Amino acid sequence: MRTIGATLASVQPGAVEIVLPFRADLTQQHGFLHAGIVATILDSACGYAAFSLMPANMAVLAVEFKINLLSPAQGRQIVAKAQVKRAGRTLTVCTADAYAHGEGEPKIVATMLSTIMAIPERDGLREQRP
Amino acid sequence: MRTIGATLASVQPGAVEIVLPFRADLTQQHGFLHAGIVATILDSACGYAAFSLMPANMAVLAVEFKINLLSPAQGRQIVAKAQVKRAGRTLTVCTADAYAHGEGEPKIVATMLSTIMAIPERDGLREQRP
Amino acid sequence: MRTIGATLASVQPGAVEIVLPFRADLTQQHGFLHAGIVATILDSACGYAAFSLMPANMAVLAVEFKINLLSPAQGRQIVAKAQVKRAGRTLTVCTADAYAHGEGEPKIVATMLSTIMAIPERDGLREQRP
Amino acid sequence: MRTIGATLASVQPGAVEIVLPFRADLTQQHGFLHAGIVATILDSACGYAAFSLMPANMAVLAVEFKINLLSPAQGRQIVAKAQVKRAGRTLTVCTADAYAHGEGEPKIVATMLSTIMAIPERDGLREQRP
Repeated sequence: MRTIGATLASVQPGAVEIVLPFRADLTQQHGFLHAGIVATILDSACGYAAFSLMPANMAVLAVEFKINLLSPAQGRQIVAKAQVKRAGRTLTVCTADAYAHGEGEPKIVATMLSTIMAIPERDGLREQRP
Repeated sequence: MRTIGATLASVQPGAVEIVLPFRADLTQQHGFLHAGIVATILDSACGYAAFSLMPANMAVLAVEFKINLLSPAQGRQIVAKAQVKRAGRTLTVCTADAYAHGEGEPKIVATMLSTIMAIPERDGLREQRP
Repeated sequence: MRTIGATLASVQPGAVEIVLPFRADLTQQHGFLHAGIVATILDSACGYAAFSLMPANMAVLAVEFKINLLSPAQGRQIVAKAQVKRAGRTLTVCTADAYAHGEGEPKIVATMLSTIMAIPERDGLREQRP
Repeated sequence: MRTIGATLASVQPGAVEIVLPFRADLTQQHGFLHAGIVATILDSACGYAAFSLMPANMAVLAVEFKINLLSPAQGRQIVAKAQVKRAGRTLTVCTADAYAHGEGEPKIVATMLSTIMAIPERDGLREQRP
């Protein structure tokens, strides 16, 4: 998040917003934000949303996600909004949408459906994968 | 690709390899490569694999992808290997695996299944989404 | 749809509901509706939702979908609600949720994110895949 | 499986094959096997493949899957081949391909990437979702 300049704009129980201002070095040849960057902020938003509903001694681990890229990501900034769809003991399922803000109405540029795992923080790093 | 230092190591019809040497600024708090970076090189590998089977006047556009994160991405470099599963007139489906190379045997760290669209290069940028 | 006894309960532009009453022969060993059946009605709901926004001479083809199974599908009936997330010239992206209705509040049992392709109806059957 | 007439044709550690002979009542209006049925046998094959590597007191639960439909599923029978990509303590990731067998060479009709959870068999039914 810090590397690309994204910030956590809002955190509520089960719902999170992340804002990423556009930066020239994150765009591809056509001036659009790279799909990998869009995936990164949606994935981060899902992780924080899942984390917001977990006990304090747990950490989150992305198990998998699917992203549909809907429109070129261009404008002034991208806002990623994630919501918990179902919080389970071990696994949490989240959805997230990314909107491009520029001139006029915000426009949806991508949508994600992801699975996040809760892991005890004391777990060694080698144990961190599902 | 250039921003993160990845290079196209091998291109065959329907099969592509991308290599990404580890860099400190691409890792997260535990020294692992960020999931978004792993997704980016797998997505790029799938795009190139699809492109390798298309007529010269076509460009590629990622429609969607799903990634499963299997192990922490740590080591000396990541190698992403993509293969075309089915090449269609409009849509191409690819699979790709990412392997971490360090001490010992390469280890699979992630796997992707993605859908790529062929678009005529003359299409205006606004038309570039599916 | 007819084989399993599902009916189209509501069709609005870009939004569709399908209802499936439980039947003993569609459940697995624990009395829950089989995941494949839940996927079938969510996939059908997405297809109809996409179709509801297309010109009359087009047909729909499921390109791919992802489903998360959230809870055991048990009760009196399942209601699948699909919505178009983005309608494109060639591809339409839909989300859909399945709810189990029994005693008490309806409960979400699965969620889907899918990609649907518009194809001219005159296309021969051999051409029907993307 | 039994409802639709599918049989487990081969089981090896981490690899499973399921065969489904075509039946008129499982096809849709064009004589192709319904996508939901193809998803069902691929999902079942993934579940068995994951199960084949687990301790005897564990059961499997499908967390999520993504399927790409590649060609119309027509012919004499469908063969679903699943393989474990990574077996973890809690989660197992599998890939599976479905092939249509008819005249000539078998043809790939669909591919799946799925996540399966291991649950202790003593877990009550209410606990069965992730």
